Amino acid sequence: MLTMNTPYLINCDVGESYGNFSVGDDSRIIPLIHAANIACGMHGGDPYHIERTINMALEHQVIIGAHPGYPDIQGFGRRIIPMKEEELSSFLKYQICALKGLVEANGGVLDYVKPHGALYNHMAKNQKEAQVVINAIKSIDPNLKIMGLAGSHLKKLVTEAKMDFIAEAFADRAYENDLSLRSRSLDGALIKVPEKAIEQVISILKSQKVTTYAGLKITLEAESFCIHGDNPAAFLIAQGLNQQFKSSHFAS
Amino acid sequence: MLTMNTPYLINCDVGESYGNFSVGDDSRIIPLIHAANIACGMHGGDPYHIERTINMALEHQVIIGAHPGYPDIQGFGRRIIPMKEEELSSFLKYQICALKGLVEANGGVLDYVKPHGALYNHMAKNQKEAQVVINAIKSIDPNLKIMGLAGSHLKKLVTEAKMDFIAEAFADRAYENDLSLRSRSLDGALIKVPEKAIEQVISILKSQKVTTYAGLKITLEAESFCIHGDNPAAFLIAQGLNQQFKSSHFAS
Amino acid sequence: MLTMNTPYLINCDVGESYGNFSVGDDSRIIPLIHAANIACGMHGGDPYHIERTINMALEHQVIIGAHPGYPDIQGFGRRIIPMKEEELSSFLKYQICALKGLVEANGGVLDYVKPHGALYNHMAKNQKEAQVVINAIKSIDPNLKIMGLAGSHLKKLVTEAKMDFIAEAFADRAYENDLSLRSRSLDGALIKVPEKAIEQVISILKSQKVTTYAGLKITLEAESFCIHGDNPAAFLIAQGLNQQFKSSHFAS
Amino acid sequence: MLTMNTPYLINCDVGESYGNFSVGDDSRIIPLIHAANIACGMHGGDPYHIERTINMALEHQVIIGAHPGYPDIQGFGRRIIPMKEEELSSFLKYQICALKGLVEANGGVLDYVKPHGALYNHMAKNQKEAQVVINAIKSIDPNLKIMGLAGSHLKKLVTEAKMDFIAEAFADRAYENDLSLRSRSLDGALIKVPEKAIEQVISILKSQKVTTYAGLKITLEAESFCIHGDNPAAFLIAQGLNQQFKSSHFAS
Repeated sequence: MLTMNTPYLINCDVGESYGNFSVGDDSRIIPLIHAANIACGMHGGDPYHIERTINMALEHQVIIGAHPGYPDIQGFGRRIIPMKEEELSSFLKYQICALKGLVEANGGVLDYVKPHGALYNHMAKNQKEAQVVINAIKSIDPNLKIMGLAGSHLKKLVTEAKMDFIAEAFADRAYENDLSLRSRSLDGALIKVPEKAIEQVISILKSQKVTTYAGLKITLEAESFCIHGDNPAAFLIAQGLNQQFKSSHFAS
Repeated sequence: MLTMNTPYLINCDVGESYGNFSVGDDSRIIPLIHAANIACGMHGGDPYHIERTINMALEHQVIIGAHPGYPDIQGFGRRIIPMKEEELSSFLKYQICALKGLVEANGGVLDYVKPHGALYNHMAKNQKEAQVVINAIKSIDPNLKIMGLAGSHLKKLVTEAKMDFIAEAFADRAYENDLSLRSRSLDGALIKVPEKAIEQVISILKSQKVTTYAGLKITLEAESFCIHGDNPAAFLIAQGLNQQFKSSHFAS
Repeated sequence: MLTMNTPYLINCDVGESYGNFSVGDDSRIIPLIHAANIACGMHGGDPYHIERTINMALEHQVIIGAHPGYPDIQGFGRRIIPMKEEELSSFLKYQICALKGLVEANGGVLDYVKPHGALYNHMAKNQKEAQVVINAIKSIDPNLKIMGLAGSHLKKLVTEAKMDFIAEAFADRAYENDLSLRSRSLDGALIKVPEKAIEQVISILKSQKVTTYAGLKITLEAESFCIHGDNPAAFLIAQGLNQQFKSSHFAS
Repeated sequence: MLTMNTPYLINCDVGESYGNFSVGDDSRIIPLIHAANIACGMHGGDPYHIERTINMALEHQVIIGAHPGYPDIQGFGRRIIPMKEEELSSFLKYQICALKGLVEANGGVLDYVKPHGALYNHMAKNQKEAQVVINAIKSIDPNLKIMGLAGSHLKKLVTEAKMDFIAEAFADRAYENDLSLRSRSLDGALIKVPEKAIEQVISILKSQKVTTYAGLKITLEAESFCIHGDNPAAFLIAQGLNQQFKSSHFAS
């Protein structure tokens, strides 16, 4: 029988609209998820959309995480912007503090931080960059949790910093054999068929195994599953997962 | 005899450098001032320069204020960007929260907020805009003080919101007869001769009167005096005022 | 009987996607229109999307116009950015030259310029701003045509500059009684029901009259009709107009 | 005896001011140089400053080159922004076409293109990126010359494209032993003592040899010498070189 005792079961990147540029279907998706990774204004999101998204999350009692990225609106945070360690640290603190303050001004609590895009992948592979991110978050509040790639070195690094780690797997992204995410520049990186995404989540939850793009079954333990807000199938995936979890006593 | 019992005597706009673009002579000016209005990243300032500036202010025990502006790097916050009230509110909260969090992560306290440039002037003249700004600041922390134009309606509005107002006059800007600042698009708006700027401050402190650009002497009470960080004469004005205040038992 | 001898019958704002932010359904709409107003990178559009859009227009033998706006990605060019005349002039020339050069590097010809958004409306009402725009375009190439609001002072001003004017009406925007466009901040500004937009075009073409939002019928002559690329109904409106024009021997 | 028959003897990066952010001392430097590399708006420069700079160059009969860079105002084009080949190509064409059109609208001629900053160095080392840049420029006008790093593979690649190459050395940058420029992140990268910069130019001109940072003398032929506009010593270096060239019959 399936059991699930994480409060973070389904997470989604939201709040990424920017001015007139609309991203994602936040108002339909937020009621279906458990944890909202809210953009912080540097890869997407502007303060107006960010504050609206915070209020949607609060209304639906969704846990709130900060979702900071490289400063790169044009690239949507999906390319590595070379920065000195001090620069990266300041840019991260700025974003997280802005979001944390906005959440608190609206009566909520910031629970965790999940870096976005290129930064997420870069820190999952590089210890130096990971350490900069962890230290920046800790300097704001050591009780902030850090959400990152399940199966990477991050669990160890975050734990060594005496902070809590939330291991995340992806519903809608294909995995390589080293458990890194298949690059968006390659075919098949994004899983757009809702049933396949749902199946990937169920498989990881039931068997702690993911089937990689190359077809291997590899052990992967995760307590939160990401759906990308700009995936056109996001709503259907979220809806399908909710139904699965309800019928299997999965609900958080 | 001159007496001075405000902790905010000289304030200066600092932290406005942006990437490779350098503004002001912050490292020389900060040791000479009492209150630092630190840019929040939307009219100038990037997180790297902002955090460096916060640390300079903390090192020299300078009071820290947030200096948010319209989102307009290219226009340096010196033109009105039309925004809906909710937009302006969110953009202000974002900036102030980012700065407040960065100050606290470095062991300091944010004391006040002073809006920048076009927003500063706009709210000094328009009640609706002023109210949006005051409400945004209050929603973050009602103990934050608000610094604004001495002689304007702001003192009344801030006091009605049960918040503290810091009345500011300008060392290096000319006044019109209605006590508004002479527009930067007109000749003589910026006082670049250090002696004249110093004289304007002393006159307001001694006699509570300012001589306007048109030559009238008008009553003006202020407890803080601004020097613009991007005024080439900023350092000399700050230095001169320090000497005056020391020799006149003015020092805070 | 309906006759139609303008080559500019249906125009649409295209090329407005920016990085990862997608706007409009350009690949489906461009085959259905006669004139493409291609964004120039300052209110929307980045060089990559702009060049792709130019190539789509060339492939479908659509006339190409430059669609410059205020420098305001966040506001999508839909708010007035205060600029000195020289600034506005340089910003317009820059955008138009960039687009003109890109069109020519791909073997095409730039035919006209249609300012975007707040600039479009501002110049339709203000002679000074209109003159700056006309002079800027003329300094690049006096053979460039200028597309602007039918019924405004622009026809006279452009003709006085010995340039060609293309009078434009809107398929999908409501009119006020003074023939200005109903502000987007008001209800009913954008016509989202395809049939209503098509009806408005046919009425103007057949009777040279438009029914305003307030219900008056006012004379309006136009030789080009705009569909907004970011109107969700844009594709259906374009498709419907094409069918009408074919069945009525309207085709250009 | 010194002889000099290049029209490009001293070049300088100019037009890089952005809004209120001032870079370089263009009005004093332009009268002293032979070729002006004018920023194109994506690493620095806005259309207003660009057009002013074009007019200064035309007034002083200085040859005009386009100086395009990675789209990165915050990083001033000094860091590699990862882009697909098609993206890089479109972004370059956009910038060059904008500048070319602005020059022509003011009665001048664009003579050459010199990529900026990280792009300049990247293409001097990587054939693929170099080829993208060369092809982009050629698609605009095969008569445009390309200025690039003397001693690199660029001379060969540009010549193979049947275009003219202008070999450039640096007055104010230190060289590594492989004739690459010493990275700005290292000490001694920028030569700020005017006499040393002047000496480096004279040495290359007289003996076709440069002394590297490590002390080796290595053959280097160049027909143009760069002074960086944002080097505080730029004016003095330009002035000193002018005096040397006049007294040695160097003048172009």
